[in-house]
Amino acid sequence: MIPEYLHKVQYYETDKMQITHHSNYARFMEEARLDFMERIGYSYDRMEREDIFSPVVSISCDFKKPTTYGDLIKIDVSVLEISRAKIKFEYIMKVGDNVVCKATSTHCCLNKQGKILALGKEKPELYELLESLVKKDI
Amino acid sequence: MIPEYLHKVQYYETDKMQITHHSNYARFMEEARLDFMERIGYSYDRMEREDIFSPVVSISCDFKKPTTYGDLIKIDVSVLEISRAKIKFEYIMKVGDNVVCKATSTHCCLNKQGKILALGKEKPELYELLESLVKKDI
Amino acid sequence: MIPEYLHKVQYYETDKMQITHHSNYARFMEEARLDFMERIGYSYDRMEREDIFSPVVSISCDFKKPTTYGDLIKIDVSVLEISRAKIKFEYIMKVGDNVVCKATSTHCCLNKQGKILALGKEKPELYELLESLVKKDI
Amino acid sequence: MIPEYLHKVQYYETDKMQITHHSNYARFMEEARLDFMERIGYSYDRMEREDIFSPVVSISCDFKKPTTYGDLIKIDVSVLEISRAKIKFEYIMKVGDNVVCKATSTHCCLNKQGKILALGKEKPELYELLESLVKKDI
Repeated sequence: MIPEYLHKVQYYETDKMQITHHSNYARFMEEARLDFMERIGYSYDRMEREDIFSPVVSISCDFKKPTTYGDLIKIDVSVLEISRAKIKFEYIMKVGDNVVCKATSTHCCLNKQGKILALGKEKPELYELLESLVKKDI
Repeated sequence: MIPEYLHKVQYYETDKMQITHHSNYARFMEEARLDFMERIGYSYDRMEREDIFSPVVSISCDFKKPTTYGDLIKIDVSVLEISRAKIKFEYIMKVGDNVVCKATSTHCCLNKQGKILALGKEKPELYELLESLVKKDI
Repeated sequence: MIPEYLHKVQYYETDKMQITHHSNYARFMEEARLDFMERIGYSYDRMEREDIFSPVVSISCDFKKPTTYGDLIKIDVSVLEISRAKIKFEYIMKVGDNVVCKATSTHCCLNKQGKILALGKEKPELYELLESLVKKDI
Repeated sequence: MIPEYLHKVQYYETDKMQITHHSNYARFMEEARLDFMERIGYSYDRMEREDIFSPVVSISCDFKKPTTYGDLIKIDVSVLEISRAKIKFEYIMKVGDNVVCKATSTHCCLNKQGKILALGKEKPELYELLESLVKKDI
């Protein structure tokens, strides 16, 4: 089991409405995803060394409850789908037992020249690892 | 016709991948939406005076092409849907003739006490204005 | 002894030059200062309850070496000076044994109405605590 | 005369204290400085083509008055000093007739390999231009 990622909301992440500005959740997702990848053995450094870049293709965020300075957000990352060319992650963010945000991000994989990597063929080790982690419905 | 909003990508909005960090698009959407509201006669100041707050309930962004420092992003905002309690905006962002990002944001309306405003009943002028602006399929 | 504050540089804090964007150091200073205040017994919540606000009056930063994504910055905060109306903090930031940034921030103290608080008279407990912590030359 | 640079404070630049977060001023300085350089004929693109990088060596900011969402900040940039290896800029920021922030930033010049450029020798055109612009005491 990959442990939850923790982000403590910083003062500079709040706005005039006295809550965390919503644009920051895309940053928390990135923090949590890079931590997740590192924990499964694919740190950003390794990805870079193996010439794999995974830009964000799309994101969606449902904001359930506001958070503010000092809140400790627990972020549970999982792999929702993996196909030949794309990976979709899901993020459940909680403060205490309350879900504050549910989000997804979809990524493609490119090499340094910006050419799409067919993960299944060209990086089978990473593909199979991510596939084995795909979230099962219960 | 509401003119397009222009955002020039700043150096500090780029990241290590040499492109605009994706979290900034949620900020560009906010800039463009507040400008749109001001142009239709509902500046943030007026909204605040009339005790209307419209936090973001959800966002989605499809990143079509990367942008980088110096790019001039033209953002076309429109009202996609309006219901009793929610407003959905659409954003088409272009650099030159190329669409770089398509996005939506959904907002509810609250009063200062955080109680949901039924726009149609309580703020009919704003409701009818937004309804008259809903994007028509062609 | 107050332990050093740790900040791991996030991907979204880097820029096109592939290093941490310099504006972020002012944010790291804030994180470290609020943590320092909490550890000496004056959390932001307590300050707010006691009606003490301490906006930033000035900052200065000397950038010694660049940092980048993944670097773990250790920040040592100390009280440099305290006078009737102002507090000056110093920040030494290191990655490993290398100093990457030396900085200061000066703050005044205000009550909720924005009136200057003469800390020595009006908040003697906080004044004396900070005075006892003033960094001594060796 | 180089015209003032204008920055309208965005909603996402405010914080829980309902004012512009101080870390953003370093970003406004960068916007204004890059605009200044472009107007004197040294756009970032030209600098990059001529293999000149000018990282920030230090900054200092005196915050005189708070600003908030919607304020239009006028930024007057000038060259304060230029030496063989360093350039110092000054920034006077006003809202209406009120100075809200006075700041400086110091930069060195490097080539792509990170070697210090002796501007006077290696880039005499840029050196002489900046020297001719140094702010005179009156």
